[in-house]
Amino acid sequence: MKPDDAELLKPLGRQTEGGIQKERTQSPEGYLLRLFLRSLGDPPMRITLWNGESITPATGRTVGRLRIANRASLLKLLINPNLHFGEAYSEGSIEIEGDLVKLLETVYLHRLRPSNPYSRWLNRAAKWLHHGRRNTFAAARNDIHHHYDLGNEFYSLWLDQQMSYTCAYFPAADATLEQAQIAKMDLICRKLRLRPDETVVEAGCGWGALALHMVTHYGARVKAFNISREQIAYARARARAMDMEQRVEFIEDDYRNIQGRYDAFVSVGMLEHVGPSHYHELGNLIDRCLASHGRGLLHSIGQTQPAAFNAWIRKRIFPGAYPPTLREMTEILEPPGFSVIDVENLRLHYALTLRHWLQRFEDATGRVSTMYDEAFVRTWRLYLSGSLAAFNTGQLQLFQVLFARSTSNDVPWTRAHLCHPPTAS
Amino acid sequence: MKPDDAELLKPLGRQTEGGIQKERTQSPEGYLLRLFLRSLGDPPMRITLWNGESITPATGRTVGRLRIANRASLLKLLINPNLHFGEAYSEGSIEIEGDLVKLLETVYLHRLRPSNPYSRWLNRAAKWLHHGRRNTFAAARNDIHHHYDLGNEFYSLWLDQQMSYTCAYFPAADATLEQAQIAKMDLICRKLRLRPDETVVEAGCGWGALALHMVTHYGARVKAFNISREQIAYARARARAMDMEQRVEFIEDDYRNIQGRYDAFVSVGMLEHVGPSHYHELGNLIDRCLASHGRGLLHSIGQTQPAAFNAWIRKRIFPGAYPPTLREMTEILEPPGFSVIDVENLRLHYALTLRHWLQRFEDATGRVSTMYDEAFVRTWRLYLSGSLAAFNTGQLQLFQVLFARSTSNDVPWTRAHLCHPPTAS
Repeated sequence: MKPDDAELLKPLGRQTEGGIQKERTQSPEGYLLRLFLRSLGDPPMRITLWNGESITPATGRTVGRLRIANRASLLKLLINPNLHFGEAYSEGSIEIEGDLVKLLETVYLHRLRPSNPYSRWLNRAAKWLHHGRRNTFAAARNDIHHHYDLGNEFYSLWLDQQMSYTCAYFPAADATLEQAQIAKMDLICRKLRLRPDETVVEAGCGWGALALHMVTHYGARVKAFNISREQIAYARARARAMDMEQRVEFIEDDYRNIQGRYDAFVSVGMLEHVGPSHYHELGNLIDRCLASHGRGLLHSIGQTQPAAFNAWIRKRIFPGAYPPTLREMTEILEPPGFSVIDVENLRLHYALTLRHWLQRFEDATGRVSTMYDEAFVRTWRLYLSGSLAAFNTGQLQLFQVLFARSTSNDVPWTRAHLCHPPTAS
Repeated sequence: MKPDDAELLKPLGRQTEGGIQKERTQSPEGYLLRLFLRSLGDPPMRITLWNGESITPATGRTVGRLRIANRASLLKLLINPNLHFGEAYSEGSIEIEGDLVKLLETVYLHRLRPSNPYSRWLNRAAKWLHHGRRNTFAAARNDIHHHYDLGNEFYSLWLDQQMSYTCAYFPAADATLEQAQIAKMDLICRKLRLRPDETVVEAGCGWGALALHMVTHYGARVKAFNISREQIAYARARARAMDMEQRVEFIEDDYRNIQGRYDAFVSVGMLEHVGPSHYHELGNLIDRCLASHGRGLLHSIGQTQPAAFNAWIRKRIFPGAYPPTLREMTEILEPPGFSVIDVENLRLHYALTLRHWLQRFEDATGRVSTMYDEAFVRTWRLYLSGSLAAFNTGQLQLFQVLFARSTSNDVPWTRAHLCHPPTAS
């Protein structure tokens, strides 16, 4: 037995409302609780069991309290915390007292510590499980339907007016979400240096906000692909209402069916759903459809080291999704010989975007629980809070990668064109 | 025999001073000449042999003429054009009429064509030859001595006043080389957001210009490593003359011997000499020496796809050197989990830097040929011209990669701090 294991067998303090009792008991639950806390990297949080037993970090300073309602939940948490924390939170057998985001941030930072072998093991297992998964056309359609076809009304409750469901860009931290989403679309158009009447193909267009921005503010002609039926219907209706149907075509189809040649290729928040085993195919597709002077931009959630998305996120939120490292993104662009012009990491902008979404979501939970149920509300609260915590602690990154053909000298001389907000807005 | 091979056996036109003779001859040289032109991807240039035989592209429009002085040179060019073009040019058995840079650009662009199997084959062979080469401490010292210890006087004839031998940054294309080198150093300091009294370690410091800039304009404290004896002596003398010896230490040692912890790590133009088999080691070194809030910047010549440097460049100019792809650069940063904040590609700035260097070099060839000899002048003319052509045609790239620890939120909110020239200059 290692000394650390001996520590696990020490009796726990039993806590009452008045404070920590000195009386100590040794119970199987106590042992399991210590093991669970250890697997999290011993973050400074209090955990309380259904029977009143409790564990508190040595320092006494805690970021919050986690209440576990029954033995089954504790056992599941030990076996697969990445999956069952979310499951238990959604069904209400875990309750959090205190700031959920702060608590998750603390857990993430402690689990990241190199001294924590549990997280390394779990990461390896998760990576192995994800390895080789192929997103067939049918699987992709199911995965996207699962998340994006929840109903436009639901998303309208907490997204910005134009329904942008990707990282915004806040020129200043006090910009509104609406301003920041417009600024993000503008940043992308300026990076691509879009010129009037240029043609753009967009792979994964959400509710069409970027395509419509390119058309209305830059005079571009856009073909936008998406396999979410609800999103495409919404985007088409918007184009009709704006009398822009001559300049933008919303196509309900898989990005792999893109045909033709374009001045620009853009994909914002779709790469997460592509899967590394399809990156080579995506690179070939971009190579096929980009003109010799063409520019491209990939905007994607990423990470610093390869690891599968959290198991619960993959089960409940984004089936089939994977956030690439920057190295993996370059593996899309290297085989066709594209030249990377500019990479910007907007990680903290995604954290702030999520703070806005979470706030609006919390303001709308009354409505959401009548549309769905309480478990749905808790699922989405955890997903938004966990994502916010992940971006804030560097577990997730946000890469914008601008590229061109290596032989094209139609590339910006400096970044001066990105420095000043455009006249159009 | 394929139809293309049949084409090779057609007799060549024999050219006289007056124009192209109609009389056609079939000679072994003619066959070889066609084969050589084919291996280059049939660029629009005229090639003339020692015996007056000549080959001209079908269009008649040419960017220049290449004269081959003897049969041995033609044979060597066929066997290994990457190496022997440079060898033959240096010794004068190849002469170029017309603009050398334009001619090389044309060759590069034609060889890049996917339809050219010769260049693919040569690239693979060169890659194979380079594979697995390890830069030991002794080999690194020899390699660096070979190039950088040619004599400070020689470099002072064509570099800027501060002796920066890396890509400059031209805020406007008409900036002087002196202004552009200062702007480059400033861009790096602003990307790193250097603050007074912060500590910096520089891996590969050249003649010390950047270290001294950080000390004098940003109040940093710098330890700068370099294994070129001549460069370190020069840098130390400058620090002494500027009375900055308390703030900057120039250390004649291999970067792998860096010790201590620093607020910033910077390496400008050294990575080319590190070699991919040492990237993992370099990543570990940066991980060891960077503080938790630390920032790092790697500035390196790169390329879009992995391929060895041109064989002649490796033999005569930069033994042991290799320009990484961006993917390969991320392989330094991914294992220690660094977060890439910003990547900027300054390829066209290097082309312009080289144009300045080449112009100054040509102005000083009289002096250079008395210091060395005519073959040296021709070697350096070809090296500078070829590099200029390579950056201009996208054969080479220039990546500036800024990174931080993934958990550090001491990262810039936007790029606003890069938009305006600083007050210090």
